[in-house]
Amino acid sequence: MSEADLKEDLPEDEAAAENDAALETESLDEENRLKPEFVRSVKEALAEEDSDRVYDLVEPLHPADIADLFELVDENERHTLARSIRDLMGVEVIAELNDWVRELLVEALPADVVADIAEQLDTDDAVAMLEDLDEADQRAVLAEMEPEERAAIESALAYPEESAGRLMSREFVAVPETMTVGDLIDFLREHRELPTEFWEVFCVDALHHPVGTCALSWILRCPRNIPLYDVMKRDQTLIPVGMDQEEVALRFQKYALISAAVVDPSGRLIGQITVDDVVHVIQEEAGEDTLLLSGAGDGDINEPILLTVRARLTWLCVNLATAIIASSVVGLFQGAIARFALLAVLMPIVSGMGGNAGTQTLAVVVRAIATNQLTDTNTWRMIMREFRIALANGTALGVLIGTGTGLLFGNALLGAVIATAMVVNNLVAGLAGILVPVTLARFKVDPAVSSAVFVTTATDTMGFFSFLGLAVLTGLA
Amino acid sequence: MSEADLKEDLPEDEAAAENDAALETESLDEENRLKPEFVRSVKEALAEEDSDRVYDLVEPLHPADIADLFELVDENERHTLARSIRDLMGVEVIAELNDWVRELLVEALPADVVADIAEQLDTDDAVAMLEDLDEADQRAVLAEMEPEERAAIESALAYPEESAGRLMSREFVAVPETMTVGDLIDFLREHRELPTEFWEVFCVDALHHPVGTCALSWILRCPRNIPLYDVMKRDQTLIPVGMDQEEVALRFQKYALISAAVVDPSGRLIGQITVDDVVHVIQEEAGEDTLLLSGAGDGDINEPILLTVRARLTWLCVNLATAIIASSVVGLFQGAIARFALLAVLMPIVSGMGGNAGTQTLAVVVRAIATNQLTDTNTWRMIMREFRIALANGTALGVLIGTGTGLLFGNALLGAVIATAMVVNNLVAGLAGILVPVTLARFKVDPAVSSAVFVTTATDTMGFFSFLGLAVLTGLA
Repeated sequence: MSEADLKEDLPEDEAAAENDAALETESLDEENRLKPEFVRSVKEALAEEDSDRVYDLVEPLHPADIADLFELVDENERHTLARSIRDLMGVEVIAELNDWVRELLVEALPADVVADIAEQLDTDDAVAMLEDLDEADQRAVLAEMEPEERAAIESALAYPEESAGRLMSREFVAVPETMTVGDLIDFLREHRELPTEFWEVFCVDALHHPVGTCALSWILRCPRNIPLYDVMKRDQTLIPVGMDQEEVALRFQKYALISAAVVDPSGRLIGQITVDDVVHVIQEEAGEDTLLLSGAGDGDINEPILLTVRARLTWLCVNLATAIIASSVVGLFQGAIARFALLAVLMPIVSGMGGNAGTQTLAVVVRAIATNQLTDTNTWRMIMREFRIALANGTALGVLIGTGTGLLFGNALLGAVIATAMVVNNLVAGLAGILVPVTLARFKVDPAVSSAVFVTTATDTMGFFSFLGLAVLTGLA
Repeated sequence: MSEADLKEDLPEDEAAAENDAALETESLDEENRLKPEFVRSVKEALAEEDSDRVYDLVEPLHPADIADLFELVDENERHTLARSIRDLMGVEVIAELNDWVRELLVEALPADVVADIAEQLDTDDAVAMLEDLDEADQRAVLAEMEPEERAAIESALAYPEESAGRLMSREFVAVPETMTVGDLIDFLREHRELPTEFWEVFCVDALHHPVGTCALSWILRCPRNIPLYDVMKRDQTLIPVGMDQEEVALRFQKYALISAAVVDPSGRLIGQITVDDVVHVIQEEAGEDTLLLSGAGDGDINEPILLTVRARLTWLCVNLATAIIASSVVGLFQGAIARFALLAVLMPIVSGMGGNAGTQTLAVVVRAIATNQLTDTNTWRMIMREFRIALANGTALGVLIGTGTGLLFGNALLGAVIATAMVVNNLVAGLAGILVPVTLARFKVDPAVSSAVFVTTATDTMGFFSFLGLAVLTGLA
């Protein structure tokens, strides 16, 4: 094996990307986003169908920036862009593309071209590209692939969506623990078919069960004659192939992992997950809660607009139902409102403040559940904590708004009523804000998805009911 | 240098953690959280002041789980726990502790003990431990430290909070690019003072400017006589020491980095950031938006309750002001409400649905801004997108609620009024939901922090105003 051969093993495209750094800097702003002027030049060149100019502009970009560029140009410009820079559309660009943008681009390509691209991608990236295609397209693409790659992708697709099986790569280095450091280095130098980029070497026994992990830096720092069982860390975090990706992400974070072995139900090593794949998951899962809590669905700005409308409208209809419930509570007090219309003026304050307080508690609790900070062990303490916070905030707000109302309208009773309602509704908000998500989680329902409806219903109805009810009860109206 | 010496270089405590796996499994549930029964046993042993039993229970745990245990026991049990397991309180436990829990524990320790702990930690972890102490305590601890470590920490503390300078570690491997693979391996084997865990080697020129990066797997796969300049990747992502940690996290994610060189303003290599430190940042920053949007402040369930009350109350008071503005809009229509109390029953539906729609748009836009997906280049397209979504949803909801109201109350005009108000308020919600955060971001204000107040004010006031105003205008009341 010649040195030239070996150099070929090294990431060629990255070495080639050793590009005109000055030009790249010109296209990015200080926050590392593509500059509007740059994108405008590309769009102009696209409009003029000047493929050469498009190519010259895009060529110096990093693959991740090319992927960003696809998001930034209009939907109808994306195919022209792809055609103009055909030979820059490497696997790294495809892997970095936003899911929706990629889906549209991929759907427009013939099956054999997609198959060619998929064969060059790592299994996990190929799976990400193919999993969103509809079944017929998927089958057509798989039919065009080489049997080996096809088998790898089919077996990955057999695992549930968002599981470790979809996330893992089948390319990894596994050796017997009895190998010495020197033998391992020779083995790595001699076997061209091994992956070029890996961070840890897994030691396995005769049954291919992982028994230890060696960080490459430990290997590099040990003399050649040391056996791997003296180098490796035996205490490993093994990922069962069916584990949910959110759980995988939490383990990577908790144990500060760079890579981890994935095992099948019989304990055999079948793949590895590396931290760069997990980073996306962490970002997605952590950011998802905001979107789920608001009912914004996928929440990706590249999602086809009809899907977005459908997702948001579904949620708004559910909320409409709860708004009608709250409104019917007000309906019970129509007579009182007709006699004393000021009640209608003040009631949104009580319900609105309760809604805000409930949302605060909910945000904190949903986050704590998602990060495994809130467990059965400390639930009771946290309920008490939220109760005390709600009591403190409710009292403070009640005194403030009660005094203000009493003075402004020269009506002490009205002040007392709104103050009391405020305390009651803050307690409702605080308790609903923690009890709803904790209960949903106990029934294995994602609290981020459906908590908000229940909490808002509670704070709206109780806000109106406590305020208007007290007004009637005290003879105010 | 003997082999025994070399083995000492390897992560000792991790090798020792090669512990009773069976026992560890017993203490964790299927989601890898400490089981309530286990925590209860520890709490019982703590109550009985049975230090030996506490020690036996905790000893098999991974440091990250010991850190979790501190969060799960009550505040007043934490010091007893720390005393009972003194020699298990290694640097890894300290580094993994929740910031608030650590602060309380650390504050209770004498300065020289804290200094001892800080000296054993990596610079970035030591900084995390010391940065939250008040200045007098910080100075006392620094005074007890060895000059070298002290200097490293002081220089880190000189960088702004949440900057790359605070996040970076000063331990890394940097060599000239002219070194060969073989010389590098010998160098790594011979120099004991080098860090034991690193993922990439940085090549530097005579001025200590980074010129390339070698992944360790490339080094292991190349023959000894190849010079590093033929192995290294020249296209690097350099992190300026003053860069905000959120920006650092975005680059790690965008370019799938494992580690990155940190450079001072003159371009000299002064530290490295590794992905395991960034994973925490990504998680925090992505999760933060939910908390910021709801005004829940830090949102950590371990935050001292008074700080939590203050943070949430501040936000609630701001919202009280906006609720009063909205309520005063209703006040303008008191006469109409007194004549036709049904208006008061229906008006919360219009404002509430607008609020929900606004929150949806806001969640999506804030996320897109945070992940650099929404930039100046596509702002206009996204405004049009939100406008179209709002028009579609507003029309659908308007028709639904308008028809229902018209039929239920046998009043077609009332139905038409609420339908129109619904469309108007959805448009207000959609446009405010994108224009407010985009404008704030342009003025370098974090849109997650203050957008919600403006958007809610817009949807509440316009909800009431459009509905009640139309009712009066059409002679309904």
